[in-house]
Amino acid sequence: MEIVQQQVTLRARPRGFHLITTEIEDCLSAIAEWNAGICQIFIQHTSASLTLNENADPTVRMDFETYFNKAVPENDPDYRHDYEGADDMPAHIKSSLMGASVIIPIRNGRLALGTWQGIYLCEHRNRGGNRRLLITAWGS
Amino acid sequence: MEIVQQQVTLRARPRGFHLITTEIEDCLSAIAEWNAGICQIFIQHTSASLTLNENADPTVRMDFETYFNKAVPENDPDYRHDYEGADDMPAHIKSSLMGASVIIPIRNGRLALGTWQGIYLCEHRNRGGNRRLLITAWGS
Amino acid sequence: MEIVQQQVTLRARPRGFHLITTEIEDCLSAIAEWNAGICQIFIQHTSASLTLNENADPTVRMDFETYFNKAVPENDPDYRHDYEGADDMPAHIKSSLMGASVIIPIRNGRLALGTWQGIYLCEHRNRGGNRRLLITAWGS
Repeated sequence: MEIVQQQVTLRARPRGFHLITTEIEDCLSAIAEWNAGICQIFIQHTSASLTLNENADPTVRMDFETYFNKAVPENDPDYRHDYEGADDMPAHIKSSLMGASVIIPIRNGRLALGTWQGIYLCEHRNRGGNRRLLITAWGS
Repeated sequence: MEIVQQQVTLRARPRGFHLITTEIEDCLSAIAEWNAGICQIFIQHTSASLTLNENADPTVRMDFETYFNKAVPENDPDYRHDYEGADDMPAHIKSSLMGASVIIPIRNGRLALGTWQGIYLCEHRNRGGNRRLLITAWGS
Repeated sequence: MEIVQQQVTLRARPRGFHLITTEIEDCLSAIAEWNAGICQIFIQHTSASLTLNENADPTVRMDFETYFNKAVPENDPDYRHDYEGADDMPAHIKSSLMGASVIIPIRNGRLALGTWQGIYLCEHRNRGGNRRLLITAWGS
């Protein structure tokens, strides 16, 4: 078994859910010869997150933004951590609901995503800036 | 270290939360000799998911269905992705709340689940059909 | 590639969100020579969970408790699993929302957490008692 690791910086995106599957796959030339393996994509932040979901219809990603803004409201008067802006504490909570990494099996030299699965960057801040990822893959 | 991988198709289940621990363990004969390792169970869909939770009392699984139906309502007039049925967009959201995989340590030749931990298939569609899993285990 | 595994028992904590990064790092002397790897921290329970989030301001962890108590209410009359206390069924749900493990890349001999990322023990029971973790790391 081999292990490879790569740092990637994603350019700043607006708040919302963004498909980044192709950007990730472009980093994975090292896995082309592997029969089986795993790839972890890890985001080194606490106000953005990663998830897998529908890769075809952009309205799904819009509805994610709609849903999570209702489920994790801004300006709850009970929040104590409020001095970095109304979007800050909700961003931390959304980040833990989704999680800081996605872990995808590798099969026959490529990510074994289902037909409709894509990788989402979930940007929870109004101005999140660039986001640093660490991609680690192991297999043989 | 070795790595093994196996495709599994779960038969169609009704909407709800279903215990599949035994079905998964039956696929894992390859790990019997390992001292330590990890097993990832990955679902190749975006409207069903996997989680770990209480394995003994079936009312816990019923309460999961009750809770998530309230937390992620159907027919929100703000959803734009609504043409595949009222259960579709909520299924996508529930799937990201729970996640597409569970990752379980292996110890002394078996899954090192806690006493009360079981593997749940979370079927979020009314008629989800068969579900494809990819099970990957590595260890030594 | 090597794999190492270690059982850890965390002392009982009050209900809430607790930073345990240092306790985990203290168990990881084996990874000091690795260039690249992965560490999984797994909790063998269904009413406590693990997540990554902001490591500096304790009010973030208080706001997590505030948020999740609103998002997953106690005493919902629709719960059927209610005989272990009002905090029991919500604890199971919160545990699946957050997840039973965190998976962190290893780079240059240490956990490659972002500047603001810490490991949270999420204790969802009023009296959860000690909590058993299994830490597995692999790399080279």
